[in-house]
Amino acid sequence: MIKIIDPYGSGLVGDYTKAIKEFGLEVFTPDMFPEPNRAMRRGVVFAGRDLKIIAKCIKEKKPFYALSGIMPTNEQIHLGNKIVVENLAYFQKHGAKTFILVADLEAAAARGVSLEEGRRRALEFHIPAYLALGLDPKKTTFYFQSENKKVIHFAYEAAKKITLNEFRAVYGNAEPGRIMSAVTQIGDVLYPQFEERMPGIIPVGLDQDPHIRLARDVVKRMKTKKFFAVSSIYHKYTPSLDGSIKMSKSKPESCISLPEDPVAVCNKIRKALTGGRDTLEEHRRLGAVIEKDMVFELLKQHLIEDDDELNRIYEEYTTGRMTSGEIKQLACEKMTNFMNDFTTKLEKYKKIVDKLNFIKFS
Amino acid sequence: MIKIIDPYGSGLVGDYTKAIKEFGLEVFTPDMFPEPNRAMRRGVVFAGRDLKIIAKCIKEKKPFYALSGIMPTNEQIHLGNKIVVENLAYFQKHGAKTFILVADLEAAAARGVSLEEGRRRALEFHIPAYLALGLDPKKTTFYFQSENKKVIHFAYEAAKKITLNEFRAVYGNAEPGRIMSAVTQIGDVLYPQFEERMPGIIPVGLDQDPHIRLARDVVKRMKTKKFFAVSSIYHKYTPSLDGSIKMSKSKPESCISLPEDPVAVCNKIRKALTGGRDTLEEHRRLGAVIEKDMVFELLKQHLIEDDDELNRIYEEYTTGRMTSGEIKQLACEKMTNFMNDFTTKLEKYKKIVDKLNFIKFS
Repeated sequence: MIKIIDPYGSGLVGDYTKAIKEFGLEVFTPDMFPEPNRAMRRGVVFAGRDLKIIAKCIKEKKPFYALSGIMPTNEQIHLGNKIVVENLAYFQKHGAKTFILVADLEAAAARGVSLEEGRRRALEFHIPAYLALGLDPKKTTFYFQSENKKVIHFAYEAAKKITLNEFRAVYGNAEPGRIMSAVTQIGDVLYPQFEERMPGIIPVGLDQDPHIRLARDVVKRMKTKKFFAVSSIYHKYTPSLDGSIKMSKSKPESCISLPEDPVAVCNKIRKALTGGRDTLEEHRRLGAVIEKDMVFELLKQHLIEDDDELNRIYEEYTTGRMTSGEIKQLACEKMTNFMNDFTTKLEKYKKIVDKLNFIKFS
Repeated sequence: MIKIIDPYGSGLVGDYTKAIKEFGLEVFTPDMFPEPNRAMRRGVVFAGRDLKIIAKCIKEKKPFYALSGIMPTNEQIHLGNKIVVENLAYFQKHGAKTFILVADLEAAAARGVSLEEGRRRALEFHIPAYLALGLDPKKTTFYFQSENKKVIHFAYEAAKKITLNEFRAVYGNAEPGRIMSAVTQIGDVLYPQFEERMPGIIPVGLDQDPHIRLARDVVKRMKTKKFFAVSSIYHKYTPSLDGSIKMSKSKPESCISLPEDPVAVCNKIRKALTGGRDTLEEHRRLGAVIEKDMVFELLKQHLIEDDDELNRIYEEYTTGRMTSGEIKQLACEKMTNFMNDFTTKLEKYKKIVDKLNFIKFS
């Protein structure tokens, strides 16, 4: 029986257990990596592929890389991006060569955003935002997909290795733009290995697993190139404030974007689904149903770093000493601090964006 | 009633008439352009799209371009390529800026030929061969698709403008490699207009019309870019020596490649389908059935430049004064001369390939 380590429960375990079985993922446990980060310690990171080779690289200080992409389709990011960046920062701190690519070609092919517009958005918002979330600007290498001829050339070769039916099975949607976007992404995740074959890890949400599977399949079909199939690490979605599995901009009242006005965010938190009981008397007597509580989930996933502090809140809330109103107030204060800190850092990094390590291609 | 001008008949008129109706092509007549070339004068060139604007550019000496691509999938070309080059040379002589691109990315995506191998084949064979067939080396601009970032970027934007269903309707095959190849081709045919909007003409065989249609559709969907939809001009296939509609390497005994050993070619010509009668007596009395005669078709399409000379042969052969054996002998001699001349020029141009006008991309 597969068990996902989630000390606080999330009410969503079933879906993730199913995904692990269906996609053949490895279950993640916090003892796999040294000094696990918040998401790793708390069951937010729940699975991966080929994690042992990454653990070995960390332990033996061997070269490996961590990579993620920026899709410059709009000028906001969400809490899911935040966890990706925090995982990247974790591997960066533990020795990974760290790459962030701007998927401007993908944004053009799949969403119709012009390259100029994609570049502008990435420089003026996404890259500073990623740094504001914890990447080390001195240790992170950036590039624009549209400038990386090697990745593009690889995409054309990789396209020949995938049939339309496979594509459709993996993505459902097999529109021409989607196809070009996906094969280019395969080039990107392997790019650090073009120069030096080494393991690499891609932190993603579960919905990105199709890309990972396809990239791993292509590697197997290009045996002569001797790439390491990329490893991946999966985190749970930040649930929507109304309790559904994933926060989504399609339901703005239940979604928190970065950046977003703290006052507006606090209003949303006040309306969020909690595990509080119908009456105060009942709540005091039975305590909160933690699995249903989206506000506790916010604290756990995003707002409280210290485990002891989170444990105290867990204890007080589940025993009814703390009310839903109080936990909402706490979440509002923490979120306001976070949002203010984020926007301050965002402005700071906007000013140094031209000094970052962008790969110059000849 | 559509009538294709073909003074000698070819036995294949029906198929081409049908294509004109189905695809909505313009019927080509030799009076459309000044000093029509052999293929234009003899009904081999039979149709086009937007030909008037090209005729106007020629007449008024306004800028326009002619463009074709080299697909470096093997190291032979065929008689169909020869007519493409002759048509290109015609427009070059009448003022067209002339572009030849090496479709190395397409060869990788659709056929799995590596970029290095594609480049080698193009430089060592295809480019010298195209020059040997009549292009002016000083007036022709070459580039490699894989180096042309602007074309590639355009391909990613164009992909978003086409649905999978449209793709399937146009090509039948909608494999990922095929899709990448096709959208890149759209970038190529428009590339000369990236700098300067002007009409352009693409000489192609009928089987290439899907590419042209798709490129024209994409132009219509990118109205703001103000491209001229490309014009096209179609030539009939050189029929297989056994009488079927198109020479094909799948039937090597009925196919003539460039280059090919003249002795082997003469053997194939001797076995070709002719319109000669069953007995000499009958032949003298009735003359050859010219519509069936693949050897006369070779003379008409490829081997005899002078119209008076071709008319004399037509006259003698259709009245029975000339036999099938004699016309085969004549074709063999002409083909041997052509093949020797071609290989001599091929060797000559191989030596100067590094001095040609290749676009250098930054």
